[in-house]
Amino acid sequence: MAITVVGSVAFDSIETPAGRRERCLGGAATYFALAASYFTDVRVIAVVGEDFGAAEQAVFEKHGIDTRGIERAAGKSFFWEGSYLENLNEAKTHNTELNVFGAFEPKIPDAYRDSEFLFLANIDPVLQRRVREAMPGVKLVAGDTMNYWIKDHKAALLEVLRGLDILLINDTETKMLAGNNNLVKAANAVLAMGPRMLVVKHGEYGATAFFSERSFAKNGTGPSKVFLPFRAPALPLSEVVDPTGAGDSFAGGFFGYIASQKELTPATFKKAMFYGGVMGSFAVERFGTERLAQLDPQEIEERFALFRELSHLE
Amino acid sequence: MAITVVGSVAFDSIETPAGRRERCLGGAATYFALAASYFTDVRVIAVVGEDFGAAEQAVFEKHGIDTRGIERAAGKSFFWEGSYLENLNEAKTHNTELNVFGAFEPKIPDAYRDSEFLFLANIDPVLQRRVREAMPGVKLVAGDTMNYWIKDHKAALLEVLRGLDILLINDTETKMLAGNNNLVKAANAVLAMGPRMLVVKHGEYGATAFFSERSFAKNGTGPSKVFLPFRAPALPLSEVVDPTGAGDSFAGGFFGYIASQKELTPATFKKAMFYGGVMGSFAVERFGTERLAQLDPQEIEERFALFRELSHLE
Repeated sequence: MAITVVGSVAFDSIETPAGRRERCLGGAATYFALAASYFTDVRVIAVVGEDFGAAEQAVFEKHGIDTRGIERAAGKSFFWEGSYLENLNEAKTHNTELNVFGAFEPKIPDAYRDSEFLFLANIDPVLQRRVREAMPGVKLVAGDTMNYWIKDHKAALLEVLRGLDILLINDTETKMLAGNNNLVKAANAVLAMGPRMLVVKHGEYGATAFFSERSFAKNGTGPSKVFLPFRAPALPLSEVVDPTGAGDSFAGGFFGYIASQKELTPATFKKAMFYGGVMGSFAVERFGTERLAQLDPQEIEERFALFRELSHLE
Repeated sequence: MAITVVGSVAFDSIETPAGRRERCLGGAATYFALAASYFTDVRVIAVVGEDFGAAEQAVFEKHGIDTRGIERAAGKSFFWEGSYLENLNEAKTHNTELNVFGAFEPKIPDAYRDSEFLFLANIDPVLQRRVREAMPGVKLVAGDTMNYWIKDHKAALLEVLRGLDILLINDTETKMLAGNNNLVKAANAVLAMGPRMLVVKHGEYGATAFFSERSFAKNGTGPSKVFLPFRAPALPLSEVVDPTGAGDSFAGGFFGYIASQKELTPATFKKAMFYGGVMGSFAVERFGTERLAQLDPQEIEERFALFRELSHLE
């Protein structure tokens, strides 16, 4: 079933210990869409400038991603320049040019309106909310955010959270959002803000899913176990070429897998956590979207099996 | 089968956000021995002062721990005072008094010499090596160390590593020991120093086992899978009362389980990683050894099942 994703499509100049690339195709919606495209139909809402050409368009088309919602505006696309020279876990931003993204007004093509799944990538919560409200018929809504919105736009963000089923953020963002340094307490506080499921991404240590009382993930084995979290591993990697987009790729694998399943059972959400890790692990193997854009389904299944072997007894 | 452990038996004064305790029974060998005692016979080599009385002795005896190797010396026992007020992951040391531990000369009772398993807890590597060499007949030797020995006593430590089968340390120690900031590369470098298995403890994120070419953990499913690491979760806890001894309790659960098994297969080592996490999770629930000293086998099996449910698909 189709996912509509709203977020950035951008160009990134990236420097890591492995090298440097100028103006790679990037943006949260791009990473998300590519990762999810291996599992289900994906439709993108974004805005790009005149520098978004046939080569970039072709990356989406090759993966069957619907780009009718990518508006072409006069000017240049969102541009980000950053490096990870000292710490692969944290980008140092050198330059951000919003360009056409600064006046982004998401427009939802009619052809997208029957989407059953909606992903609100990391953008201004005012826009996230507008898209959410314009698509009241979706079955499941997931979203991302970041420290900037948590710190300075909390009221708008809290309104988005009330309309979210699943929130995906990292440890620091979870603790900041809840104002609590214990991850479990912080997660419960975030669940009380709206989402029925919170996925906390731990970078190289994997991710933990927390479920609320209103969760779709009740496992039915007894009241004491209803809220048991679920922890998925990350692949220990001897080289991370470029961490950019790892979180968005996690979200794409996670939500893409969910959208591909007929039934939303606890098993669905747990396997989705593994597929999130799988797609995140591919994303960082090369610069930008290079690796994500070149996968075949068998590689994905092989890596899923590796994640299982890495973490399962017997 | 019996484990001999050499290390500290001490008194700790501890302050955490949950409160303060004066002069709890502590020390790496104490935590290790208590955790391991739920799985197998444990024999302790340590030195204590005249302040180690009947109450402390009773804690060991209640768990069937052999204390004939705990030497009583004139003076006071090793004493440590620390707090975790700002960061539960890192102790702030306020006072360390080595006391009788400063002149510790491990003496191995004859009754310990048929031990098949040896654990070298975190002490001066010169002493670790001496005990290792005095027990040449053991089947498996595991050990711990810390940043202090890595930084300032590396030559002596490297000699210990050559005689170790399994080393258990944390992320920072692994990277420091190897001089490499990538965990996988650092782990491989540490394995080249001697151990056949390296267990890297990630605190609240669990632990990862890395296996060397000479590993006993070959899984026999093909050359490409021989060296696949194994990742065990930690329990997401809404309250950590006192983190002291978590790593030693992990080691006790881990090595105690291994010593309780007839065959050392890959499955044994993987399950041992889970039992390590289980015992670590109990240790932090109360101050000092309070919780570890009061477990029953059913609680341990229930928590093991919880760890499995927390991390396994289906």
